[in-house]
Amino acid sequence: MPRIRFAVTYDGRSFAGWQIQPHVVTVQQTLQEAFSHIYEVPVSVHGSGRTDAGVHALNQVFHVDIPEANIPEDRWPMALNVHLPRAVRVLRAQYVSTDFHSRFSAVGKTYRYAITQDPIPSPFDLGLTWHLPYTIDFDLLETALHMLEGEHDFRSFAALRGNEPNPIPSDYFVRTITEATLRRTNQTHFELTFSGTGFLYRMVRLLVGGVCRVATGRYPIEEFEKIIKAPTSTSKSPYCAPPDGLFLVRVNYGANDPF
Amino acid sequence: MPRIRFAVTYDGRSFAGWQIQPHVVTVQQTLQEAFSHIYEVPVSVHGSGRTDAGVHALNQVFHVDIPEANIPEDRWPMALNVHLPRAVRVLRAQYVSTDFHSRFSAVGKTYRYAITQDPIPSPFDLGLTWHLPYTIDFDLLETALHMLEGEHDFRSFAALRGNEPNPIPSDYFVRTITEATLRRTNQTHFELTFSGTGFLYRMVRLLVGGVCRVATGRYPIEEFEKIIKAPTSTSKSPYCAPPDGLFLVRVNYGANDPF
Repeated sequence: MPRIRFAVTYDGRSFAGWQIQPHVVTVQQTLQEAFSHIYEVPVSVHGSGRTDAGVHALNQVFHVDIPEANIPEDRWPMALNVHLPRAVRVLRAQYVSTDFHSRFSAVGKTYRYAITQDPIPSPFDLGLTWHLPYTIDFDLLETALHMLEGEHDFRSFAALRGNEPNPIPSDYFVRTITEATLRRTNQTHFELTFSGTGFLYRMVRLLVGGVCRVATGRYPIEEFEKIIKAPTSTSKSPYCAPPDGLFLVRVNYGANDPF
Repeated sequence: MPRIRFAVTYDGRSFAGWQIQPHVVTVQQTLQEAFSHIYEVPVSVHGSGRTDAGVHALNQVFHVDIPEANIPEDRWPMALNVHLPRAVRVLRAQYVSTDFHSRFSAVGKTYRYAITQDPIPSPFDLGLTWHLPYTIDFDLLETALHMLEGEHDFRSFAALRGNEPNPIPSDYFVRTITEATLRRTNQTHFELTFSGTGFLYRMVRLLVGGVCRVATGRYPIEEFEKIIKAPTSTSKSPYCAPPDGLFLVRVNYGANDPF
């Protein structure tokens, strides 16, 4: 069966996350239903990873195996978008070899997290930005972000799903962050960007919660350094930021396979 | 009775416009209901002007006369916001003399209009941006905008409400536009800003529709010049842009009365 990959953007406010679950509307299910208007047989949508309820995507990637390659690549976005709610838009499509897998072929991802310090948060930021109306030490914030870069055991920044292997291998929580940067969008808004080889469950939100607790003076940077560089089985990020500000920006398949 | 003025921001997607009407939720009514939690007697909310259904405000101004000045200015936003849906936020409050009137004291207003040329519009622009996926001649757009600046008879850019005086005075449609400018936000988004002494009903949307028809090559600039500089009783802007992209940015009460 021909395999095809898609880039898709969605507004997380409209969905109970990516993964199919009973009794709630999810992105994966919504996409599968759109395919049901095109093919008689059900197709399975394979995402590059899950996003939690309320988390947004600018470019999530998924692949599907389809009964026949009857639609050209450039027609696919429109073919699906007519059957999708406006909160999800398919952006691009590309036929790929069956060696490609949206999750296992990914070599990295980029996430962005948006924060506002407005004393009164704008209605237009609702569900799209974390409201953090505290004084931020931006130098300290950048110091904390810089500490994250490189290869580390990120067990302090992972929530357990309950499906981990037992015993957990020693390198299970090791990831490499290639970029952890701050951009001040305007006087009251800033964004944190994280690129890396992969991210553990809730990792970005735990990273954001951690660096922001440091930058608002509510968690010592020495403690923060410890839970990155010498984590123990009980060390834990001091805070998990809400899903609102989190955007999956890009899934990276390597320089030889741009999408 | 003490008079107080407020700045308020709202997301127009949640309301059937500013003005109270039966059977629909409007901003004016929502604000009046918030005051009903504070005072036993009903208060009337007087806006600087109406906004249509789907039109947004970053800083709308209204005043009310209240039974007693029992709340300090800096406490007023929170006092109202706890009783308001998150789609409306009161930003500032100031006690004023009863000479002040939110509508009649205004000497000018600024509106912004947001447009996207994305072939596939982002879910995050939904209801906040006009989707205009055509090639734009930005030089021509700026030429058309420049023609609007100054004092003109804007009858071609006014919808009639049906409550106009009869006969209509000769200066009834005369307004001065002090600024009509383009800002390209990024490769696919741009904003038009209009400042002036006052705006007629639907005027900004008719201006935006007009300049965009010119800039997409669907309306000759010579015709456009004619309906601005020599309007007749039948001349009319070629298009009315949708409410989605329109934001009331500021109401101006003069250099001596900043708010």
